[in-house]
Amino acid sequence: MIAKHLAVIGLGLIGASAARALRKAGEAGFISGYDTDPEQVRIALELGIIDTAADSAAAAAQGADVVMIAVPVLATADALRAVRSGVSPQAILTDVGSTKRSVLAAVESVFGELPPRFVAAHPIAGTEKSGAANAVTELFRGHRVIITPHANQDADAVARISRLWEGVGARVVRMEPARHDAIFAATSHLPHLLAFAFVDMIAQQDAADTDIFPNAGGGFRDFTRIASSSPRMWHDILRANTQPVADLLRKQIGELQQLLAMLEGGEWDRIYGVFERARDARERHLARIE
Amino acid sequence: MIAKHLAVIGLGLIGASAARALRKAGEAGFISGYDTDPEQVRIALELGIIDTAADSAAAAAQGADVVMIAVPVLATADALRAVRSGVSPQAILTDVGSTKRSVLAAVESVFGELPPRFVAAHPIAGTEKSGAANAVTELFRGHRVIITPHANQDADAVARISRLWEGVGARVVRMEPARHDAIFAATSHLPHLLAFAFVDMIAQQDAADTDIFPNAGGGFRDFTRIASSSPRMWHDILRANTQPVADLLRKQIGELQQLLAMLEGGEWDRIYGVFERARDARERHLARIE
Repeated sequence: MIAKHLAVIGLGLIGASAARALRKAGEAGFISGYDTDPEQVRIALELGIIDTAADSAAAAAQGADVVMIAVPVLATADALRAVRSGVSPQAILTDVGSTKRSVLAAVESVFGELPPRFVAAHPIAGTEKSGAANAVTELFRGHRVIITPHANQDADAVARISRLWEGVGARVVRMEPARHDAIFAATSHLPHLLAFAFVDMIAQQDAADTDIFPNAGGGFRDFTRIASSSPRMWHDILRANTQPVADLLRKQIGELQQLLAMLEGGEWDRIYGVFERARDARERHLARIE
Repeated sequence: MIAKHLAVIGLGLIGASAARALRKAGEAGFISGYDTDPEQVRIALELGIIDTAADSAAAAAQGADVVMIAVPVLATADALRAVRSGVSPQAILTDVGSTKRSVLAAVESVFGELPPRFVAAHPIAGTEKSGAANAVTELFRGHRVIITPHANQDADAVARISRLWEGVGARVVRMEPARHDAIFAATSHLPHLLAFAFVDMIAQQDAADTDIFPNAGGGFRDFTRIASSSPRMWHDILRANTQPVADLLRKQIGELQQLLAMLEGGEWDRIYGVFERARDARERHLARIE
């Protein structure tokens, strides 16, 4: 068992799912929890996801050997300041944020350095649903967890957080924070922005309610699934990783402008070429998508 | 039984799935089939999807009481010309194309009029997979089929094609062809173009093969699923329904340019507003998406 006492700060989908998964895997014994939203705390208690609800983040962290911060990424600094007084010097502090440069900057701003026993981690798992009520015990099985190391890090802390995630069926990969942020801008952050933008554009059409949404099928449903994700969470992620996403968005707009010109210019062979290249690229890599 | 003898011209995913579904539902007795690709014919025979493979579309149609054209939409006129000599005057001719104005124009170009016993239909079902090998018997259950009527149409023909689709669990809805094309430009044609464009842009990044695709997760997989669809089929659909798609694409580019300006200008409340509007619109309509 990695954590005799696990404290989970932030009882949203990821925090609550991690608590469930770690308890089931026998990697967490006693689990304390805290969330700024009393409703999430109530649900997590009611569902047995946490054993005790603390009055504050610091109280939740007291006596814990692993403290997991699972809040929207821009709330990381506040959460760290809040737990700081409760965390014991031996405890490992870790997170689950989708952006890593911003999280490491938040850690540094609160502690004045990157503490040896802080481990930045990002489980590549989730659903479009939010909140403790939607927690999924097997959410991480077969998925990857990226750990972005920093200088002066405690090897034992990294090893234990790695084993924690491996214990719930994940595969741990190490990566530089900037590389992480560039990759996930492409695989996750931009697609979310594009899906939100598409649904928002459709919703503004006159016929949206009467004609368009009632005739949406499976392709629409899957293409827009991630547009049901938490606006707060994705606002934070884009704000924490703006430049890589903006750079890719500019390229995407450029590609769409080219496609519009091809449509209007009747350049059908080129359009066919784009579709074929895209299909081939996706099929080539599909087996690796977890 | 609606069709004692069903002829399916085009043994791709939809044609082969329809044959399977109609046979299982007892709505089709003997099934003849033809495809310009001998490989699809071979697979359809081998899997028992069709009872006999004809040497030509006309031969497949001979003696059939229902002839279903299930080819990429721009191949509709050629398929109609090919079957024409074989179709008996009592037979009902129908199609499954994703664009309806273009199909009706093709019918008119071949027959010099819209024949009373031609029924234009579009089952709102599919997967990203292509070909007879991927045929799914239950593909249409719980989905809608749009029938776009025309003047001078035989009421019995429409009633029988409606019952044919209802027999495999679909719900039939009637709609004007132009309205159909405008709606599906929004719910299906533009999303396919956007998904192809996104994957193509990603595939062009330096780190695509080494970093990006290997780190794609569930959000990426679902957002891009339709980019694995047949390039030929989607080239045809966009070419057959260009203007409605181009109009929406222009709006989408405009919205993305606004979002890029908001990202670069730090207008985070507005970005949050877009995400929230999109999430709310999708959630409001989700229950109706089949």
